[in-house]
Amino acid sequence: MNAPARADEAERLARVALCLASEPAEATITRTVAQEGAVAVRQRLLATGRIGGTELKAVSARLRDVEPARDLECALASGLRFVVPGDEEWPTQLDDLQHASDVVEGRGGPPLGLWARGPARLHRLVDSVAVVGSRSATGYGTSVTREMCAATARAGWAVVSGGAFGIDQAAHRGSLAAGGVTVAVLACGADRVYPLAHERLIEHLAQHCAVISEAPPGASPMKLRFLARNRLIAALTRGTVVVEAAPRSGALNTARWADSLSRSIMGVPGPVTAMTSAGVHWLLRHGATLVTNGGEVLETVGAAGEHLTVDVRGPERPLDRLSVRQLQVLDALPAGRPAGLSSIARIAGLAVAETERHLVDLTRNGFAEQSAGGWRVTDYARS
Amino acid sequence: MNAPARADEAERLARVALCLASEPAEATITRTVAQEGAVAVRQRLLATGRIGGTELKAVSARLRDVEPARDLECALASGLRFVVPGDEEWPTQLDDLQHASDVVEGRGGPPLGLWARGPARLHRLVDSVAVVGSRSATGYGTSVTREMCAATARAGWAVVSGGAFGIDQAAHRGSLAAGGVTVAVLACGADRVYPLAHERLIEHLAQHCAVISEAPPGASPMKLRFLARNRLIAALTRGTVVVEAAPRSGALNTARWADSLSRSIMGVPGPVTAMTSAGVHWLLRHGATLVTNGGEVLETVGAAGEHLTVDVRGPERPLDRLSVRQLQVLDALPAGRPAGLSSIARIAGLAVAETERHLVDLTRNGFAEQSAGGWRVTDYARS
Repeated sequence: MNAPARADEAERLARVALCLASEPAEATITRTVAQEGAVAVRQRLLATGRIGGTELKAVSARLRDVEPARDLECALASGLRFVVPGDEEWPTQLDDLQHASDVVEGRGGPPLGLWARGPARLHRLVDSVAVVGSRSATGYGTSVTREMCAATARAGWAVVSGGAFGIDQAAHRGSLAAGGVTVAVLACGADRVYPLAHERLIEHLAQHCAVISEAPPGASPMKLRFLARNRLIAALTRGTVVVEAAPRSGALNTARWADSLSRSIMGVPGPVTAMTSAGVHWLLRHGATLVTNGGEVLETVGAAGEHLTVDVRGPERPLDRLSVRQLQVLDALPAGRPAGLSSIARIAGLAVAETERHLVDLTRNGFAEQSAGGWRVTDYARS
Repeated sequence: MNAPARADEAERLARVALCLASEPAEATITRTVAQEGAVAVRQRLLATGRIGGTELKAVSARLRDVEPARDLECALASGLRFVVPGDEEWPTQLDDLQHASDVVEGRGGPPLGLWARGPARLHRLVDSVAVVGSRSATGYGTSVTREMCAATARAGWAVVSGGAFGIDQAAHRGSLAAGGVTVAVLACGADRVYPLAHERLIEHLAQHCAVISEAPPGASPMKLRFLARNRLIAALTRGTVVVEAAPRSGALNTARWADSLSRSIMGVPGPVTAMTSAGVHWLLRHGATLVTNGGEVLETVGAAGEHLTVDVRGPERPLDRLSVRQLQVLDALPAGRPAGLSSIARIAGLAVAETERHLVDLTRNGFAEQSAGGWRVTDYARS
């Protein structure tokens, strides 16, 4: 048996160095690294302080100070690993970020690598959906999220979210409750916990699934890192479901990334009177797909025909089986005292012979009943 | 001044006769009348008992019995009028039904005429929307309907609905409350009241707006007539809004007619846990436009640019005005004890000169404050 593929160690160390010296999603760096490799980019920055036309003095200065081998060793010792392109575990769908346009100018590109804790293998995230939304979610939003994520988990799909309060938390918990794989992508270092109140949840994910980040170990959660993190949630998954989101919420930023990556964008509707659903309704008015449960999520992101939902129109009612002519006769039948054939035919506007034929069928199917005085409609037909 | 256009009186009487002798929306009759006129069709039925290949014995038999001149006179005396193509008041958008495909096989075509009560002139319904939905609506559905219809009324648009319990009632009342024109299309004769509990509402509409039907005076509300009636609601209007609808409800039948007429179909979302919204969500998953208020309805059906809604994303927050570099510097500022320039530059990952430039801007805009010890973030920036 072959050993699993691993990236070149010099390349890995150069990526660690660039990761330590720059902010996540600095597009000039990430895109050039994806094209030319980190070894070349690191050397060029050390030598010239620039990439192409862009001066990156601060990054170059930091590059001189960092000790990637030592930091990587520390990280490994503390249970973190650094997954890079070329590793078997690398989720290759992240490479799509190379050609996605930036949602925030100059911020984008594939991550230099992923710091990860936990047993879940990241290349298995190919069958995954992102479920994100408001931190101040309602009871409605969290309960719909849990059920939806439990359903996707039961179908073998992983749920990716951000570990935050509200919808994120409900997404992780719903998937866990159904025994699924669920991964938190953090804006801070993967060795840290944010928000602090979610320490138990995030440690549980690190024990049983995975917690990942492109920011180096120890990094604090900062605004720009949340925006950068959102693009990873969108890029890792086949589609992003936004459950509840106020206008201008971070979940909409994730949805914009999904759009720029040509991934599916889905939204769960709610009352139009709830501000917590206003951002979702905005998405749904601008091309997102409305989903009401896990089955519909899978139908949207799954392979064609793989997950067909049951038609919501529900079971056929007995009346649906009748022809228009039969309905005309049924409409002409009295509910009380039975009527004669000629009277029924007149009211139905049909010939007597045709009316009689339909009456025989309607009686056989339980819609009409015949007695001495003629025909009348049954309780069954009126139910 | 010219007298308003009026249809030929022989044609009008022939249409009354056919209306009295047949069921509404009998497509063989309605389509042939639209092509060849009612005089010719009536004569042919009396002579041969058929139209084209279709035998219509019962209709022909009834045609011999009806007395259209007498019935029309009675109707006029009781305050009804019979509007037909050629009359100035004829809503010509109904002619689109000639080419729309039937939702129920063999049932369709333009109505032979419209029996109408009330002062509203029917050709004015060109700027109108249909608002329909469940008879067993929730408080949420009725309150959203009322607000939506009040808003369309204020913009000068008429609301067409079916006079039924639930959403229909709320649609009429919302429009009336804002002083709008609202028209009920009934499945029974326009001289009757259905449902009986809506006697006051329907009489009010007949006094101040209009109550219309294609079924002759005295006709009872029967299943087939409801389905036929729904096509008129869809055809009279520029689009149909479904507010709440269980799967398989009549409102979905109206939406299918709107679709077959290439009119807009709109749906108001609700909680995915409510069966009253399940039919609407089904529509929204199959191409209907999500609307959350009257403005969005008008944007959907109105002329381009005529009704532009305010972007729901809401007002810009101060932070949205900052550049990525400024955000980087802001992120690097401490909240407590002020930090020095070189420390801020290092954390931001930017050159000292650039960092200082951004600090000046941030201070001017109120995001940062300078003191003896250096800079820190303001409460304003953290709000």
